[in-house]
Amino acid sequence: MDEDAFARRDATIAIVGLGLMGGSLALALRAKATCKRIIAIEREPATRERAIARGAADEASADLSLASQADVIVLATPVRTIIEVLPRVGEIARAGAIVIDLGSTKRQVTRAMETLPAHVQAIGAHPMCGKETAGFDAGDAELFRGAAFVLTPLARTSPQALAFAQSLAQTLGARPVVLDAARHDKIVAATSHLPFVLAATLMTVAAERARDDDWLFTLAASGFRDTSRLAASDTTMMLDTLLTNRENIVDALRAYSRHLSALADAIDRNNEAALRATLERAAMKRRDLFKI
Amino acid sequence: MDEDAFARRDATIAIVGLGLMGGSLALALRAKATCKRIIAIEREPATRERAIARGAADEASADLSLASQADVIVLATPVRTIIEVLPRVGEIARAGAIVIDLGSTKRQVTRAMETLPAHVQAIGAHPMCGKETAGFDAGDAELFRGAAFVLTPLARTSPQALAFAQSLAQTLGARPVVLDAARHDKIVAATSHLPFVLAATLMTVAAERARDDDWLFTLAASGFRDTSRLAASDTTMMLDTLLTNRENIVDALRAYSRHLSALADAIDRNNEAALRATLERAAMKRRDLFKI
Repeated sequence: MDEDAFARRDATIAIVGLGLMGGSLALALRAKATCKRIIAIEREPATRERAIARGAADEASADLSLASQADVIVLATPVRTIIEVLPRVGEIARAGAIVIDLGSTKRQVTRAMETLPAHVQAIGAHPMCGKETAGFDAGDAELFRGAAFVLTPLARTSPQALAFAQSLAQTLGARPVVLDAARHDKIVAATSHLPFVLAATLMTVAAERARDDDWLFTLAASGFRDTSRLAASDTTMMLDTLLTNRENIVDALRAYSRHLSALADAIDRNNEAALRATLERAAMKRRDLFKI
Repeated sequence: MDEDAFARRDATIAIVGLGLMGGSLALALRAKATCKRIIAIEREPATRERAIARGAADEASADLSLASQADVIVLATPVRTIIEVLPRVGEIARAGAIVIDLGSTKRQVTRAMETLPAHVQAIGAHPMCGKETAGFDAGDAELFRGAAFVLTPLARTSPQALAFAQSLAQTLGARPVVLDAARHDKIVAATSHLPFVLAATLMTVAAERARDDDWLFTLAASGFRDTSRLAASDTTMMLDTLLTNRENIVDALRAYSRHLSALADAIDRNNEAALRATLERAAMKRRDLFKI
């Protein structure tokens, strides 16, 4: 299905939550003029005003019931809020409406989607892009370009709803990737949630040591800046992410701690051969992966 | 002392090791026309050829004894090579010559510098900049701009030699910072060596898991890319760095592991309050530090 398939749809789209993701989606859809009408459901009055001012939405309201007018309802809040609003979304959605979420974890959301009324279509999604700056003002119509756009269909998801979600991803310039929700959650525990926890802990340790030596952050250069970047991520979003993927993250953290401990031992014991082998493998893999 | 102070010097500078650091130094000195003559001492014939071709050096040789013609000898190899060549540098250096190294750790280097003949001046330096790409071809005359340029004088370092090193740093557009070598090594264990070890371990864990699921790296986005960036650093350089700062790095790693384990426990036990407090503190500190 090509980009035109989505462009041809004369759809009204409701986006619930105008943060970085929801805001970027609204801006991207507007930039490509791919839908008839965008309704923004957003709690913050200031954000609603800015969305209208930037032309990201035709209408903005705090009232979820406006989503009853939509052909497509996109849930773009933190994960636990998605799970919380889903029953109400099921009550108000019109027959044939497609409900899509953009949450960072997929098992609990798709499980909650199973309870939606049969006349509503539903599919999970997770665009693999982001920024450490949150909120509508960080929104960017190009945020999704080139990113993998994971789609996690439910058993009940119709081929048409899946095709629609795929064409939506393509319209945004992203690459749709259909994956099982459990598999998604296990993968992102290692590629996304683990890096966040590592960055936050690096920041914690550095801040603790900076209390003993106020020159510490003066010497923090680009390596520290990049490795700690994710620590600045929105706390509420990340809390929801971590707490809805606990087993996978704890498992990834335990594996990480074992490897870190082995590396610390190799340094401590001056075990140059073991150290060189581990570091060389990691360096080659990283260079190969990002082609530097 | 201003930039002119260095520019006025009619000096011959020998740079030993034309990797990223030495190469960038040669290119920066040449771009600013701040010395009479640059002699590159470099083992690799291909690198010597490229250095001459790019105009980074007037003369390039594998023979360290050419440094006997220099007023300033800059050692820009990995740390253990610096320590290894220092006795020979002491034998050949002319009276009054200034020996400066750019190594990533400073205690062992400055200790080795103490044994240089009395007619040679010596000072340790560590510009807090870098890239994950190594080698002369990654060299950049602007690499040092805006970076902290740590100087670790020895007890025997003359005020003139220190002033010269400060003006060199300023000529490169960097900010000279005079620090005790032991204090430098303790700080960079947390701000530089710890991030490297974290990135390498992240790459190790992700590569291990990618063997079980070949979709894993397809879902690795910008967060993974940035957090793992340092893993691609030059292995020989980093091995020398880690093994000449073992106690500090092991200490930083132990502190890190304790914090990581506490965070894993908070996730495991669904301890939202503790988790939120830790993550919010880290986020605020990171945002404040890099002003986003």
